[in-house]
Amino acid sequence: MSLLVVGSIAYDSIKTPHGSREDCLGGSSTYFCLAASFFSPVRLVSVVGEDFRDEDMALLQSHGIATEGLEVAAGKTFRWGGEYSADMNTRDTLFTELNTFGSFEPKVPADWRDSHFVFLANGHPSVQASVLDQCSKPDFVVVDTMDLWIQTAKDELMALLQRVDGLVLNDEEAKLLTGEYNLISAGNALLEMGPKIVMVKKGEHGCFLFNQYFQFALPAYPTSTVVDPTGAGDSFAGGFMGYLAGNGRVSLHNLKKAMAYGTVTASLNVESFGTDRLSTASRDLVDGRFEEFLQFVTF
Amino acid sequence: MSLLVVGSIAYDSIKTPHGSREDCLGGSSTYFCLAASFFSPVRLVSVVGEDFRDEDMALLQSHGIATEGLEVAAGKTFRWGGEYSADMNTRDTLFTELNTFGSFEPKVPADWRDSHFVFLANGHPSVQASVLDQCSKPDFVVVDTMDLWIQTAKDELMALLQRVDGLVLNDEEAKLLTGEYNLISAGNALLEMGPKIVMVKKGEHGCFLFNQYFQFALPAYPTSTVVDPTGAGDSFAGGFMGYLAGNGRVSLHNLKKAMAYGTVTASLNVESFGTDRLSTASRDLVDGRFEEFLQFVTF
Repeated sequence: MSLLVVGSIAYDSIKTPHGSREDCLGGSSTYFCLAASFFSPVRLVSVVGEDFRDEDMALLQSHGIATEGLEVAAGKTFRWGGEYSADMNTRDTLFTELNTFGSFEPKVPADWRDSHFVFLANGHPSVQASVLDQCSKPDFVVVDTMDLWIQTAKDELMALLQRVDGLVLNDEEAKLLTGEYNLISAGNALLEMGPKIVMVKKGEHGCFLFNQYFQFALPAYPTSTVVDPTGAGDSFAGGFMGYLAGNGRVSLHNLKKAMAYGTVTASLNVESFGTDRLSTASRDLVDGRFEEFLQFVTF
Repeated sequence: MSLLVVGSIAYDSIKTPHGSREDCLGGSSTYFCLAASFFSPVRLVSVVGEDFRDEDMALLQSHGIATEGLEVAAGKTFRWGGEYSADMNTRDTLFTELNTFGSFEPKVPADWRDSHFVFLANGHPSVQASVLDQCSKPDFVVVDTMDLWIQTAKDELMALLQRVDGLVLNDEEAKLLTGEYNLISAGNALLEMGPKIVMVKKGEHGCFLFNQYFQFALPAYPTSTVVDPTGAGDSFAGGFMGYLAGNGRVSLHNLKKAMAYGTVTASLNVESFGTDRLSTASRDLVDGRFEEFLQFVTF
């Protein structure tokens, strides 16, 4: 089934206890696309500046990512700089230069408007809603969000949640949006806001899935090699949505497998700076790690 | 198989966002015994004061907990007071009155020295070691510890770890003892200190099991009813050791089931103040929740 993603592409400058990188390819939709591409072709709607490198465009296309919806606008590509703490559990944003992404108005190409699976990567809820306005009748829409929008655009976010099938966010955001300390209570409160499925990401503690009829949890893949956590959440979402779109059917069984594949793609992503590991890994490697992960969680 | 536990009995005064209680029955070995008693008889070595209530002694005995090793010493029973934060993730100790527990020298009754399963609840490593000196040849010894002993009695703790089969501790303690930020690295470092099995408790994030040949993880039971977290770790250990002792065989399969039963007994414990829920729950309730938990984690 066709999979559409709308989100940012950025050049990131990252410092972690393992070193630093300047201007490496990043952004929510980049991580999402690369992770999803193991399982399904991907349609990318985003914007970059005139400085976007040919090799990065080629990298995306070589992974089966269609770039007809990738606008090259006058100006520079979005830039973000961040530095992680010694234990990697917190990070400081050093700078944010929105550049061309600051005035991004997503335009879904005409022949992509019938996409079956749609992922709205983190962005202003009004911009995310404008994408849905352009889609005809998607089967399964998942939206990501963050504390900034919960604090500054809550009404727009609440309206958007009535229009989506799934919501993905981290545990802090779940608590912030619901006012519930207890994660189970928060998950149930989020379901009442509209989505049929809520996925709460807990980083090194794994992830929860909430639905009216069932709940499911997975730990994170047990990696001791965490080089750069940037993009872990988007890589999770990419593996999750990519697997579902590749399979075509959103069942309980497939949701569980999709969460496990998301866990695997996220675990690969954090093992190197930027997209290095995701962009060079093979489907065989992903499947091998999936089998290994099953051993870790199978009862 | 026989199960011996050595640890504290206390009267706790607890404040949580759900209310407060004065002088309710608590202490590490109390929670352990009650949780283990669903699966196996338990032999308790501990100390209380002359103020220990007859009804509490009767409560323990009515759960198949043998009290021949429970010394009633001159003076008062250990008292502890604590207050939990609004999100229940941190607590302040309001007072600690060791009383008779301050000079506790565990004496294992002669006909208990051949116990097959031994749990050394949190205590000074030298006192824990003195228990092992009195046991003949236990099949499976697990030790609990805490930050205080890691900081003040590390040499004694390291010596003790050479003599036990399993170590149970929480994630912060695992990081403190090893100096490793990454939990997987910490788990592997702990295995090198002696134990064949290391269980890391992560509270609401579940638990990990490490062994040279395998790793295993479980999320916590998804409860939205957390009234009083006191004793959750000891209730986990009790369900874990109780199930293994009841079954008699420490295999990978049984370790996984034991972790799930420990998760279930811990989840029951936090749903009421003190030991209220553990002391009134039935084995049927435990098994029912076990089945429910399997649905939550089964792939």
